[in-house]
Amino acid sequence: MTSHIAFIGLGNMGGPMARNLLKNNFKVTVFDLNQDAVKVLTDQGAQSAETAQAAAKKADVVITMLPSGEIVKSVYLGDDGLIRCVQKDALLIDCSTIAAEDAREVITAAHQHGVGMIDAPVSGGTAAAEAGTLTFICGGDDKDYQAAKPILSAMGKNIFHAGEAGAGQVAKICNNMLLAIHMIGTSEALNMGVSQGLDPEVMSEIMKASSGNNWSLQVYNPYPGVMPNVPASRDYQGGFMVELMNKDLGLAQKLAAQSKAATPLGALSAQLYQLHQNQGGSGLDFSSILQFLQSQS
Amino acid sequence: MTSHIAFIGLGNMGGPMARNLLKNNFKVTVFDLNQDAVKVLTDQGAQSAETAQAAAKKADVVITMLPSGEIVKSVYLGDDGLIRCVQKDALLIDCSTIAAEDAREVITAAHQHGVGMIDAPVSGGTAAAEAGTLTFICGGDDKDYQAAKPILSAMGKNIFHAGEAGAGQVAKICNNMLLAIHMIGTSEALNMGVSQGLDPEVMSEIMKASSGNNWSLQVYNPYPGVMPNVPASRDYQGGFMVELMNKDLGLAQKLAAQSKAATPLGALSAQLYQLHQNQGGSGLDFSSILQFLQSQS
Amino acid sequence: MTSHIAFIGLGNMGGPMARNLLKNNFKVTVFDLNQDAVKVLTDQGAQSAETAQAAAKKADVVITMLPSGEIVKSVYLGDDGLIRCVQKDALLIDCSTIAAEDAREVITAAHQHGVGMIDAPVSGGTAAAEAGTLTFICGGDDKDYQAAKPILSAMGKNIFHAGEAGAGQVAKICNNMLLAIHMIGTSEALNMGVSQGLDPEVMSEIMKASSGNNWSLQVYNPYPGVMPNVPASRDYQGGFMVELMNKDLGLAQKLAAQSKAATPLGALSAQLYQLHQNQGGSGLDFSSILQFLQSQS
Amino acid sequence: MTSHIAFIGLGNMGGPMARNLLKNNFKVTVFDLNQDAVKVLTDQGAQSAETAQAAAKKADVVITMLPSGEIVKSVYLGDDGLIRCVQKDALLIDCSTIAAEDAREVITAAHQHGVGMIDAPVSGGTAAAEAGTLTFICGGDDKDYQAAKPILSAMGKNIFHAGEAGAGQVAKICNNMLLAIHMIGTSEALNMGVSQGLDPEVMSEIMKASSGNNWSLQVYNPYPGVMPNVPASRDYQGGFMVELMNKDLGLAQKLAAQSKAATPLGALSAQLYQLHQNQGGSGLDFSSILQFLQSQS
Repeated sequence: MTSHIAFIGLGNMGGPMARNLLKNNFKVTVFDLNQDAVKVLTDQGAQSAETAQAAAKKADVVITMLPSGEIVKSVYLGDDGLIRCVQKDALLIDCSTIAAEDAREVITAAHQHGVGMIDAPVSGGTAAAEAGTLTFICGGDDKDYQAAKPILSAMGKNIFHAGEAGAGQVAKICNNMLLAIHMIGTSEALNMGVSQGLDPEVMSEIMKASSGNNWSLQVYNPYPGVMPNVPASRDYQGGFMVELMNKDLGLAQKLAAQSKAATPLGALSAQLYQLHQNQGGSGLDFSSILQFLQSQS
Repeated sequence: MTSHIAFIGLGNMGGPMARNLLKNNFKVTVFDLNQDAVKVLTDQGAQSAETAQAAAKKADVVITMLPSGEIVKSVYLGDDGLIRCVQKDALLIDCSTIAAEDAREVITAAHQHGVGMIDAPVSGGTAAAEAGTLTFICGGDDKDYQAAKPILSAMGKNIFHAGEAGAGQVAKICNNMLLAIHMIGTSEALNMGVSQGLDPEVMSEIMKASSGNNWSLQVYNPYPGVMPNVPASRDYQGGFMVELMNKDLGLAQKLAAQSKAATPLGALSAQLYQLHQNQGGSGLDFSSILQFLQSQS
Repeated sequence: MTSHIAFIGLGNMGGPMARNLLKNNFKVTVFDLNQDAVKVLTDQGAQSAETAQAAAKKADVVITMLPSGEIVKSVYLGDDGLIRCVQKDALLIDCSTIAAEDAREVITAAHQHGVGMIDAPVSGGTAAAEAGTLTFICGGDDKDYQAAKPILSAMGKNIFHAGEAGAGQVAKICNNMLLAIHMIGTSEALNMGVSQGLDPEVMSEIMKASSGNNWSLQVYNPYPGVMPNVPASRDYQGGFMVELMNKDLGLAQKLAAQSKAATPLGALSAQLYQLHQNQGGSGLDFSSILQFLQSQS
Repeated sequence: MTSHIAFIGLGNMGGPMARNLLKNNFKVTVFDLNQDAVKVLTDQGAQSAETAQAAAKKADVVITMLPSGEIVKSVYLGDDGLIRCVQKDALLIDCSTIAAEDAREVITAAHQHGVGMIDAPVSGGTAAAEAGTLTFICGGDDKDYQAAKPILSAMGKNIFHAGEAGAGQVAKICNNMLLAIHMIGTSEALNMGVSQGLDPEVMSEIMKASSGNNWSLQVYNPYPGVMPNVPASRDYQGGFMVELMNKDLGLAQKLAAQSKAATPLGALSAQLYQLHQNQGGSGLDFSSILQFLQSQS
């Protein structure tokens, strides 16, 4: 018997994720404040509800995809929060990217009401959301993780269990901090090589085959013209915006401060993206950090 | 007809490289100030010479593997330098890692005397030198590169032509700067995750399958115990020493200053390795930067 | 007619501050969870109360000196918070160093109950607290600032009005970030000069008379032996501890993130103090960052 | 009997320095490749010479003020260098800002020919050169320093003896690194405070009276409008240009690498000024780093 899923939050990521659930024959009830976003889904077979609570009450599984920890907490906690209105054996899955401490607070509250819950932030961007090839990085009890897995598999390709409650958020934010670092590092190396007369494509091939190899060189080269289908080759339009990278680097620095963990390159990367944003780079893809480094004169 | 090769500089890298030339049936005359190093090679069939000049005079190809640009310049330049004593159609191959400007100075001098020369620094360490699986990153005229390729193939697996004279040095030093950056970045991410209770092996798997993926995670994990045969799992012994990484990061910062290229993460990485060295890490493998980041209290 | 002051929080700073109020003939009722700290004050003429509320109820002015924003909020806010129990015309002065947003939240709540309040964090350390020479950096309405000034003057020498509610916290945290930066910068300059054979005292004199001049060189030289009565000349004991500087740099980075203000040197300074703390420097004076930079080998 | 001084290098600094020697009744023979610069001085009573050697031959004291270590070495060293052509008891004073190792090389060569020499780089800029209020930071033997002092006093106010040969360069470059650090730090603090609604003038007053106090706040405030007669209040025109600060920070990083001294804030400051220069700030006063930090959006 297939689950009945309530899906709350139909933005650029949530919308296509809910669609993939429908394609996989799940029964889905959606909710979003944006009626246009709701209509796209009901046109494809979803039911809709007047409120998040109404959607959640009838469901076996509730999935949320929301923009901030503040909003996640306001949706789940409190007297009219989802935790108090769902069925006793419901499973809650929060796919938002939020601070680990916020995730732990909400999951602890769910457990206090006897409700299972995991954090399951995603990696992969809107293209992967559409294609159903997202990576889910989960935190929570193994029982809840196992229950969530078949549902997440309808929306993603790689499903990881990072550890206890909040561990999904920790692993995701560590990954994205590392992504920022090697993207800037790759940009520094390519820019310096080109300033010495080297060809960025030749340099990329050499470093990809050597110890400098990393994801940026493999699939997301920041130098314009080296790869055909990446933001760098279309004026850094589309992709993963600088302001979103800034949000994640902010979460990383908050986590580092709580952990008393030294992250010197992570902290400097956050500063460089902040400078880039302040100078007008906010809406560009994050690989445009190469442009920030380049001489304009 | 096989070439007669003069090989100057039989250290940890040069020794095994010369041995692989012998194994591939090249005629090799060696020179080093260290007589023990010479004997190891003559025992395996090499001829020896009293001086570098004597070795070079008889050879079609001269290969040098020396510790610094100062020494490379003193060997090639001047009235009794190799450039003035080799045969007119000889080919010179310098495999040392030195500043690009030093490489360009020597190659220009060679060209002025009508002698072909390339810079061909290596990547891969002593294990790859022994196994004949080094990567050579070459700079110079295509004619000289093509002539050198069959000889380098006896010692390495990947042979790249990065560009004009000095380009081999530029590409190598850019690569190693990027290596330092993602090694520190990977260490920061793993250390922060572990401080939040995550398992370093699980985290490594997740980031390797995600956008954080890089060479450090793939083959050189800095967290003790995650990979069996890496320096991190034997107290950071062996491998690529912190003081050698420091030398390369020093060359990278020199190149950045000449290029007027901004390399903020490269500069900070150089500082972190300097701090690590000053606090006693000099002789450890460079992945021990994880240990430098960890709390001792 | 002199005010009756309730003083809540009698730690290393609060204790001597309350004593200076007594010396200036203010009537003071104190409260602290630590009975020994209370007894020191009652021995000198203070009255004591069973609870913070009991102390506050009878007073015209309430001064708090507490270790964190969490505690400040728990003391002032809520049904049994001080804001709800003080007299209508009471004046609240919070001298704790906390996040500006926490200060604003509490002051706003006070205003909603018709009670005047300012934030008034201090600069100067325990010696200045004892001597009554603290600097107070205040935020809030001018009326409240003017009312507080004669009372603060009993405990300090310089009283500044930085701006609206929270501005005292902002100015203090900006100042302390700048202090960390020039202390590290001074240490880098002295350490590099000494490594080149220069005398740290001669260098300090030169830079103090030149454009490098700053507070660290003037009154708090980080090089052992240059100044007689500073922590550097007594093994970095006493003074302003690394862990307290870390707390302030954490507040600064939090403020920078909220402000979307780039603070690259501030962020790196926070990282360097975190590394220093992790390696065992936690309880040393913050000028010991010079020791962290020095070579141990 | 007054000395006869040869003055080589009549640029923005050298010209007014030579003029002050004339004003103090020294006999001065000048040389520069720029004939206009020479004429300004001969109009004021200087003699001129066809070559640097001709000027130096007749003099008791030779002063040089040149733009780079390369040029200083080419003027002093070699078969027709000044060292070989001056009188045996002549005193050489190099006021150029160059690498300490270059200064040591030239002074050692002078000593080998029995000629006394000191390095005496200046601090203070063109205004101080005109006013005769420069700071001279000298390195060399005490005998030579004492002999130079009366002459330097005609051009400057503060004359320091930093130590042995090259120590003047070391102390100057350490000072300027520290200057860059506290200028950026001051800019970060002011920018963050203003972004939180504070007045930059009020903040400057508070920090100047507190532990953040430094030369930038005292005489060179980077925030437009706070001080009337500084570059910040005239669109960052005039003053000490970003590209000159970049040159000094490059010398500092070279010195740090040689010294194996960690200078994390110095290295990051060099990167930030490089980024600022690359984005078009090259010709602005160095306090314009505040503008680089500010949000443009």
